[in-house]
Amino acid sequence: MDLKAIIRDVYDFPKKGIVFKDITTLLMHPKAFDQSIDDLCQPFQDKGIELVVGIEARGFLFGGAMARQLGAGFIPVRKPGKLPADIIKETYSLEYGSDTVEIHADAIRLGQKILVVDDLLATGGTAAAAVKLVEKLGGQIAGVAFLIELDFLNGREKLKDYSIHSLIHFNSE
Amino acid sequence: MDLKAIIRDVYDFPKKGIVFKDITTLLMHPKAFDQSIDDLCQPFQDKGIELVVGIEARGFLFGGAMARQLGAGFIPVRKPGKLPADIIKETYSLEYGSDTVEIHADAIRLGQKILVVDDLLATGGTAAAAVKLVEKLGGQIAGVAFLIELDFLNGREKLKDYSIHSLIHFNSE
Repeated sequence: MDLKAIIRDVYDFPKKGIVFKDITTLLMHPKAFDQSIDDLCQPFQDKGIELVVGIEARGFLFGGAMARQLGAGFIPVRKPGKLPADIIKETYSLEYGSDTVEIHADAIRLGQKILVVDDLLATGGTAAAAVKLVEKLGGQIAGVAFLIELDFLNGREKLKDYSIHSLIHFNSE
Repeated sequence: MDLKAIIRDVYDFPKKGIVFKDITTLLMHPKAFDQSIDDLCQPFQDKGIELVVGIEARGFLFGGAMARQLGAGFIPVRKPGKLPADIIKETYSLEYGSDTVEIHADAIRLGQKILVVDDLLATGGTAAAAVKLVEKLGGQIAGVAFLIELDFLNGREKLKDYSIHSLIHFNSE
């Protein structure tokens, strides 16, 4: 099944001039969603992944199903103020301004093998911040998985020390 | 496995006097998370569910894995401004003020059998709004599933016309 063909282009979202890759048309299709989880997990199936770290919010959608498939637990990386217990945080730069993500301070034990997942690799700031949070807690990054990679934004550069697995590539807007 | 025992109480979150039921201790435990998906799906396994509707953000965690287990597609109900294509929305009252949730207008076809899922049934406003969105689009609600129900908040009253399946009950704070 061609997962790329089922992704919908939405023009001028979230602002004029942007072509947004809408994955809801993939999620609503049972076979496409099922296959996307299989394909995202495939390189990591025998790698002893203990925890899948999913990035809020669309990373939760894939991360929960992937954790289950890999026999792993799930850890959320969230926007500020959402996690109830003690957290550590990481702030990263955006084109204009900055953003912050948080993880529970007791989420990961030293040396645990971690797979980080999000729906989209764009400029890579969020994923790189999530990777830093995992490493601050002593986790070992086994890989970083994305449904979609926007190659022309070169987010891969921010994750060059890690194994990146992207299912779908877009080479231009 | 006793899922209830693995949920963590966090005091004074999100504000003083509230005891927050923290599910991240369940999510990080592979067997507990796996069992929670099995148990959430159990009553709906042979009901011909076509779409699982998950409510942002923790409903995504369970909803994605449940859709896969049920051979269904997944539809997100999101906070305002997050869904890229044409939406319909539903506004509901909170203790102070109001909140709004949105769904893509083309997410559901007439008569499709829908399971709505979220992590927590508290006062029931969000879940009732999600149910209304599904029905406005012509979907048929087969049930509403929650990991946790806070019985003392009586949210069940707002969903009394529907089949409610909650795995874990708390009878008092």
